[in-house]
Amino acid sequence: MALKKKPVTGMKDMMPAEMEIRDYVIGQIKETYRAFGFSSIETPCVEHIENLCSKQGGDNEKLIFKILKRGEKLKIEEAKEEKDVVDGGLRYDLTVPLSRYYANNANELPSPFKALQMGNVWRADRPQRGRFRQFMQCDIDILGEPGNLAEIELILATTTLLGKLDFKNFTIRINDRRILKAMAAYSGFAESDYENVFIILDKMDKIGLDGVAAELEENGYAKGSVEKYLQLFKEITNDVEGVRYCKEKLEGFLADDAAASLEMIITSVESAKEADFCMKFDPTLVRGMSYYTGTIFEISMDEFGGSVGGGGRYDEMIGKFTGQNTPAVGFSIGFERIVMLLLERGYQVPTAAQKKAFLIDKKMPKEGMLKILNLAKAERALGKQVMIVNMKKNKKFQKEQLMEQGYTEIVDCYADNVEQL
Amino acid sequence: MALKKKPVTGMKDMMPAEMEIRDYVIGQIKETYRAFGFSSIETPCVEHIENLCSKQGGDNEKLIFKILKRGEKLKIEEAKEEKDVVDGGLRYDLTVPLSRYYANNANELPSPFKALQMGNVWRADRPQRGRFRQFMQCDIDILGEPGNLAEIELILATTTLLGKLDFKNFTIRINDRRILKAMAAYSGFAESDYENVFIILDKMDKIGLDGVAAELEENGYAKGSVEKYLQLFKEITNDVEGVRYCKEKLEGFLADDAAASLEMIITSVESAKEADFCMKFDPTLVRGMSYYTGTIFEISMDEFGGSVGGGGRYDEMIGKFTGQNTPAVGFSIGFERIVMLLLERGYQVPTAAQKKAFLIDKKMPKEGMLKILNLAKAERALGKQVMIVNMKKNKKFQKEQLMEQGYTEIVDCYADNVEQL
Repeated sequence: MALKKKPVTGMKDMMPAEMEIRDYVIGQIKETYRAFGFSSIETPCVEHIENLCSKQGGDNEKLIFKILKRGEKLKIEEAKEEKDVVDGGLRYDLTVPLSRYYANNANELPSPFKALQMGNVWRADRPQRGRFRQFMQCDIDILGEPGNLAEIELILATTTLLGKLDFKNFTIRINDRRILKAMAAYSGFAESDYENVFIILDKMDKIGLDGVAAELEENGYAKGSVEKYLQLFKEITNDVEGVRYCKEKLEGFLADDAAASLEMIITSVESAKEADFCMKFDPTLVRGMSYYTGTIFEISMDEFGGSVGGGGRYDEMIGKFTGQNTPAVGFSIGFERIVMLLLERGYQVPTAAQKKAFLIDKKMPKEGMLKILNLAKAERALGKQVMIVNMKKNKKFQKEQLMEQGYTEIVDCYADNVEQL
Repeated sequence: MALKKKPVTGMKDMMPAEMEIRDYVIGQIKETYRAFGFSSIETPCVEHIENLCSKQGGDNEKLIFKILKRGEKLKIEEAKEEKDVVDGGLRYDLTVPLSRYYANNANELPSPFKALQMGNVWRADRPQRGRFRQFMQCDIDILGEPGNLAEIELILATTTLLGKLDFKNFTIRINDRRILKAMAAYSGFAESDYENVFIILDKMDKIGLDGVAAELEENGYAKGSVEKYLQLFKEITNDVEGVRYCKEKLEGFLADDAAASLEMIITSVESAKEADFCMKFDPTLVRGMSYYTGTIFEISMDEFGGSVGGGGRYDEMIGKFTGQNTPAVGFSIGFERIVMLLLERGYQVPTAAQKKAFLIDKKMPKEGMLKILNLAKAERALGKQVMIVNMKKNKKFQKEQLMEQGYTEIVDCYADNVEQL
């Protein structure tokens, strides 16, 4: 009785009902991105500990599940600190592995390379409702494409996916880190203050314009800068007009093509979109990670408080690993959140097969059994899901159980009726 | 430049061509077993170290990737041995996790429970060609069904799967641990010698009848027993006649229903099979793990030396964990071997979409781009895989690359021809 029945802390056993939705969503993700020319890739779940601790992962690096050295390399009694006994760790995201993968295999990969990576990641976070220490991530990246075609295709593909999963009325908010910086520069903030200003700006949806103003002033920034800055947000509209306004107003502070490129992305997505959503220019969108260099975007859904996905351009990150900059844009989809939303709304997988069960009486003779096996074979070949199961004493309860599992057609099979089946 | 480009020792980056086959095989597995009423489940990749070291895993327990304790629980400087610093490990198979899963969730699961579990497992084996330290396992189990309907459905489902993957002319060898034991008992071996006798018998395909005889005698077993034993193997045929012969000859040594049940399995599978294979009674089939209690089976394929899958009945294993015996039969499919065989024979995924690429000249005006995006949208909706990509200076090389990726239709798009597309 050495077995512990519960999974390890913070990780979970997937029950059949949830798995049915997960499998369906995974299938839709693969099918949709494939139609846009993305290729599936996979990297090992274990990475070199040096790669995981290379400062690309921010706070996630504190949450790594570390793997013990093996064999002669492990000298526990001499060990003073963690790094003496560890040589690997479970990946905490898919970005570090993607960078390593690209660095390792770029010669064999097409350019641009459109990658779809789905896989579990692990973070030793404090366990809490709805957050687990092992969870699925789904990342889509286009490597090697400097133009905004990459952003356009990523957004079109991802919104098409969400549409297929019956999500409607969601919003893609989009911005560009260059506009973010130009607005700060135009207002007179010092470059060294940008990141801190953006952290405060990021609270806009919680504390509003006045709250942001107050906090900026509390942080000691010049009142003139703060007023000039906030005036911009009052004037900029959430559409292509807003983008054009930025282009004009921020002249001299903003790269020539930045606003035009953003406008092109918004116009293209609106023109060629498949799903029912709207696209908003949001000059207050910041996105935490400082590695973004250009476009940033996020999906918001009213029925779910937060974001269900987001990403942006990070042209300088792969270069940090390989020594050679590679243009890159990525989108990370909140797989677990999407599955949770579908489960909560009692989503029925549309591709679910018709389910039929044969209940076999224990006195069924051999010939009867062979007949039923062949009936099942024929129905399975037609796409039905067929369960053959021995009849229990409590047949009523057994049938209720089967109906709960979705078996709408249940056939009692006895020696004396098997001929008529 | 802290990044190590190579994956950790013994693990591998999956390239797009292999992933296409893997994704296809995974899809076929899920679809096929679903048609037979199996439900997908998933367990965490990390298990309690106590569960992994509970003596169910045989030699695999020596190969565990162990996970370091975290936070205050970790006291490296005081640690004397591994167990002081470790609280989890990566699973080395899917059987231990299935047992834990069933123990943890039996109340919420139907009975019988037909489970399909696919997932990575890890073993710190010495790296060698074609064997990796992270690999996918695929297990199918029926828990709670004591009758041979479980074996019949497992074998039918698995062979149907192999048929869908274009495998032909393979063989299912089948035996029953009870027949194995009855033959040894009939021949006069002591019960305590059975396991050793079976280890020698297991070499039959390598060293032949005479080799087995010689080795049994070398091990000191009575000449009379050895002769009586080997005479049996000469007389038993590899079909249901052989099973009937066993029933008759081994009377008094073999449970009444054992031979009849095996005969029923063979007859049923032959009658209702979908794929092109043959079923052989093989009284020399042993299967290593001693936890098997009844039927055992293995898939052999001529084009691949060894087995590509196997399993059997293990009615007493879950009871060791839960304290309550649960009838169980399982099949483990050699997922990695199947993928390797398909890759080697240059298998073309039959569901692959038609692939079309639009090459966009850099002077394409906005209106042209919108037109192309909408053309692509229409073709994607029809199931085509459409790549939109900026034209490179070396267009010829770019096209060759695209053709290598399977893009059979490539359209050059310029400002002056976009109207005609």
